[in-house]
Amino acid sequence: MTAQRIWILGGGLIGAGWAAIWAAAGHHVTVIDPDPGHLAAHWPSALAGVALPPVVPDAAQAGPAPDWVQENLPEDLDLKQTVLANIEGLLTHDTIIASSTSGFSPDQIAQGLAHQERVVIAHPCNPSWLMPVVELCGHTSTPPALLDHATFLLEGLGKTVLRLNRSLPGHLVNRLQAALWREAVHLLREDVASLGDIERAVTLGLGPRWSLIGPTTVFHVSGGEGGIGRFLDALGPQFDRLFDSLGSPVLDAETRQILTEAVHRADPRPVAEIAAARDATLIRLMAHLGHIGPQA
Amino acid sequence: MTAQRIWILGGGLIGAGWAAIWAAAGHHVTVIDPDPGHLAAHWPSALAGVALPPVVPDAAQAGPAPDWVQENLPEDLDLKQTVLANIEGLLTHDTIIASSTSGFSPDQIAQGLAHQERVVIAHPCNPSWLMPVVELCGHTSTPPALLDHATFLLEGLGKTVLRLNRSLPGHLVNRLQAALWREAVHLLREDVASLGDIERAVTLGLGPRWSLIGPTTVFHVSGGEGGIGRFLDALGPQFDRLFDSLGSPVLDAETRQILTEAVHRADPRPVAEIAAARDATLIRLMAHLGHIGPQA
Repeated sequence: MTAQRIWILGGGLIGAGWAAIWAAAGHHVTVIDPDPGHLAAHWPSALAGVALPPVVPDAAQAGPAPDWVQENLPEDLDLKQTVLANIEGLLTHDTIIASSTSGFSPDQIAQGLAHQERVVIAHPCNPSWLMPVVELCGHTSTPPALLDHATFLLEGLGKTVLRLNRSLPGHLVNRLQAALWREAVHLLREDVASLGDIERAVTLGLGPRWSLIGPTTVFHVSGGEGGIGRFLDALGPQFDRLFDSLGSPVLDAETRQILTEAVHRADPRPVAEIAAARDATLIRLMAHLGHIGPQA
Repeated sequence: MTAQRIWILGGGLIGAGWAAIWAAAGHHVTVIDPDPGHLAAHWPSALAGVALPPVVPDAAQAGPAPDWVQENLPEDLDLKQTVLANIEGLLTHDTIIASSTSGFSPDQIAQGLAHQERVVIAHPCNPSWLMPVVELCGHTSTPPALLDHATFLLEGLGKTVLRLNRSLPGHLVNRLQAALWREAVHLLREDVASLGDIERAVTLGLGPRWSLIGPTTVFHVSGGEGGIGRFLDALGPQFDRLFDSLGSPVLDAETRQILTEAVHRADPRPVAEIAAARDATLIRLMAHLGHIGPQA
């Protein structure tokens, strides 16, 4: 692939991750951030060998028009719209404008731009330099060819692109995560088990299986020779009853207190220590699963 | 630990798994099954080195009273109650009667027995000889000391025991699984993404992370130094809105057809081939995660 000219808007955690990924793959990256130290502070330590790209405070100083803009500003719609409107004149008609937003739709992000069809969401999974998944969703006016080209560029970074036909809050990953977590909160709220045991139901039970086959394939395999069809015939009604019995807790003050106390009881270590242990094992696990792409 | 005398009721997939686990740990196992070939047909191939325990057609031929009975009969409440009532006279007052049921409560299983407090659910995670999790739930009259003793015996098999304070349909693992799957079905039903991309959101995104830290710890880590408290303050309202936006599909005829077609499109391989690939990778993954206990 020809080296692409990449502008990264915002050098925080997400922006630094994107900058590292594009730079490691040999593209020309410029980070636009008013704070020159922001990027270095968030640069992934595991990618210490990759040279930091230049940081400029303003897009006007970022040089020739880019092929791809990745927007990673705070989750403030007004701010995102204003910054994108200000730089649109510096772009070509082919520039893809990708947002890392987890909370807004491409149509919201693109409001006020002259060429809204160039706006897509490219939402990484955290930590973005390690996890291969990118969720891609176009504006309602984005042509399929533009999404195909975006997919091609992202796959060139070693990413696996998940294509959304339309925008929903939380895209795919965060919705699925929220669905399971809601029931975890319910089980804790109802004192069915300790938080530690609920966590272990996932880390020792569901997580390993779901690292290999997805949630529907699990049931396809359970169905034996008859696969998912046989599974649904035999257990569909039982699952409908189970669906109906799931809880719908609200994260009110009492629930937050229960959660907070339970978390500290289950694992009293400082957060930084839990995070460091997670990162070290996650890197080895992704390598073991063969999921680490050319960027790491 | 002193070698225990174990009766396994039913030599199918679940019963054979339990028989293999207890036998591999050096306990005296007898399988009670009217079909003498049933056990061998379901013996885990990865445990081929462990000698098959004796199979008798009837509990009256199983020898001295056992310390532990593990019931793995078909999910038919009448059948389970009848068989347990028939063998109760052969047990001592200390025998623990554990059921592998996924659908009934200990109070339902124990109905009609003279010593209902001895009945517990010990529900394994499939494949039981490989996955460490056992969900343990007592009858409403079971004394805590009996559950502590059951936990001690199960931990001696290399198991991690998840204790339920009360019985709920699906225990912990299947409820959490159903919660995520319901949203996966919703996303497919609404054509938000292909089944393959929904599966990959789990296998490449959530599964690896959830093999290392549980769903609440993920957010505890996201909160940085402030942990779960800061996370809930900042994102609680956003998650409440996300909870409200989750789908509640029903597994009706149309949904079943959509699911079945999508599964075959996403992975047209025969089920046996998918299952064999899953088993081989799961064994390596569990060893990599350090989750393989003394039984394998």
